[in-house]
Amino acid sequence: MTEQELTDKVVASFETARDDRFRELTRALVRHAHAFVRETRLTEDEWSAAIGFLTAAGHITTDTRQEFVLLSDVLGISMLTVAVNEAGPGSVAEAPQGPPSGRTTGLSQHSLAEATESTVLGPFFVQDSPEIELGGDIAGGASGEPSWITGTVTDTYGDPVAGARVEVWEADDDGMYDVQYDGGGLAGRAHLFTDAEGRYRFWGLTPTPYPIPDDGPVGRLLERAGRSPMRAPHLHFKVTAPGFHPLITHIFVAGDPYLDSDSVFGVKESLVRPFERHEAGTPTPDGRGLDGPWTSAGFDIVLRKE
Amino acid sequence: MTEQELTDKVVASFETARDDRFRELTRALVRHAHAFVRETRLTEDEWSAAIGFLTAAGHITTDTRQEFVLLSDVLGISMLTVAVNEAGPGSVAEAPQGPPSGRTTGLSQHSLAEATESTVLGPFFVQDSPEIELGGDIAGGASGEPSWITGTVTDTYGDPVAGARVEVWEADDDGMYDVQYDGGGLAGRAHLFTDAEGRYRFWGLTPTPYPIPDDGPVGRLLERAGRSPMRAPHLHFKVTAPGFHPLITHIFVAGDPYLDSDSVFGVKESLVRPFERHEAGTPTPDGRGLDGPWTSAGFDIVLRKE
Ligand SMILES: [Fe+2]
Ligand SMILES: [Fe+2]
Repeated sequence: MTEQELTDKVVASFETARDDRFRELTRALVRHAHAFVRETRLTEDEWSAAIGFLTAAGHITTDTRQEFVLLSDVLGISMLTVAVNEAGPGSVAEAPQGPPSGRTTGLSQHSLAEATESTVLGPFFVQDSPEIELGGDIAGGASGEPSWITGTVTDTYGDPVAGARVEVWEADDDGMYDVQYDGGGLAGRAHLFTDAEGRYRFWGLTPTPYPIPDDGPVGRLLERAGRSPMRAPHLHFKVTAPGFHPLITHIFVAGDPYLDSDSVFGVKESLVRPFERHEAGTPTPDGRGLDGPWTSAGFDIVLRKE
Repeated sequence: MTEQELTDKVVASFETARDDRFRELTRALVRHAHAFVRETRLTEDEWSAAIGFLTAAGHITTDTRQEFVLLSDVLGISMLTVAVNEAGPGSVAEAPQGPPSGRTTGLSQHSLAEATESTVLGPFFVQDSPEIELGGDIAGGASGEPSWITGTVTDTYGDPVAGARVEVWEADDDGMYDVQYDGGGLAGRAHLFTDAEGRYRFWGLTPTPYPIPDDGPVGRLLERAGRSPMRAPHLHFKVTAPGFHPLITHIFVAGDPYLDSDSVFGVKESLVRPFERHEAGTPTPDGRGLDGPWTSAGFDIVLRKE
């Protein structure tokens, strides 16, 4: 039996699958996995190392530590999955000649805009975050410089989406998410809803760079690759509204040195936002008194219809 | 950034790896994994299901249950890895016109033969099995019909390999390996050494079909694929001797109905052996008294030099 005959035999073994898509996925998986083994002439020691890697990744994975997501992230598989699921220009069927991809600000009523671009979910999303009022604070005890974030949620015609759920989460200024602390509560995450004009506003934290968890097999992979585990500073968004495709994205900090070497390949130019710096004592838009400096940034979000 | 540009960027991120082979493997992994995602237009739900599958596989894996090996086995990746590492005809450099592949019996002194073919290690190999004498019994309490197994270990010139370590292991007649029983000791496995003429002999058990462990994610994958978890009956061998390439293989039972549908694609024609049946009361070659029927089989093994 030649190598190709073996591959064909394994592909054929999935013929009996009842679900068409399952059959398609498993056969493609076999073809591509076999192509990898054949091309690299994988040794048995390397095969054993791969089994060991997957086992270690499985054993370090818990409800709050997801090593397989990290692996997918650092191999660019997460971003590629985002890309193949992202609405291309064809998704605004009425206007293939719409504005350039990623321009999401400055919409006038009834102009056409492309939907805001997506990026990776990451491993730190949590269901059931606390709800805050418009203008509330997501910190909940997380340390960091306050950042006033405002924007709108509209559809691709520029019409406001009222009552959209805006879910936000981020690391503290030690580069840690709440779930990475033993026994801590939720912090640095919340959800709020847009008002009748589709507007939202809240106090977050100025994003700071942080390493993805690198004390496990994925960290050792990056180390061996000579790659940095650092992520470009960002604030996560998940925006959902009835009738619209859910949007999972980040905003990034303009000018940050990590923008070009994000460890999970998550940066898209259209998601980079200036974070304006305000010295201590500068009055805040909502009259909140703050001891130190703070920042502000805007992010207007465009959802695409389902 | 196009999908191809993303792939190129991820491939380039491994440029900094110091080890050439590591760089080659990681880049190939990225290319083939990305090709799979692009070709199938993997959805985010399917991506999540894959993460969930790997997590479940990791969590069911213990020192004695290796779900990732099972996964590799049922996807034919294990057998393909065996195939790419197997000595091809070119390995007997002195005689490219040697006998047909897989003919391992009937060697006369100084004739040339190809090395015995390999197959999968499987997940049930254990270090430090008990040692038995030539002619000893590997059962150690495992239930099943006794089977008298004899053969030789030679090199590709037909010269005997004395003192070769012959490691054998198999399931009992309930289709279970020792390590699958809670708290049981080692049974159905042992090692012995060839004599000065390269001969070996031992009492094993007549192999019976068994399902690979199918109560985990790999079992659910097979179920969804409409595939059977059954393995063709077999007896595992691992044969090692200084100066020779280790041989990991099985022998299979001629005439068995599962030979054509082995769940891990492990069957090779050259490894199928007749197991001769002997009625109760038939004298055994070593004078051992047995109450019931027994079988016998021969397996002459050819090792290739390192
Ligand atoms: Fe993050
Ligand atoms: Fe087995």
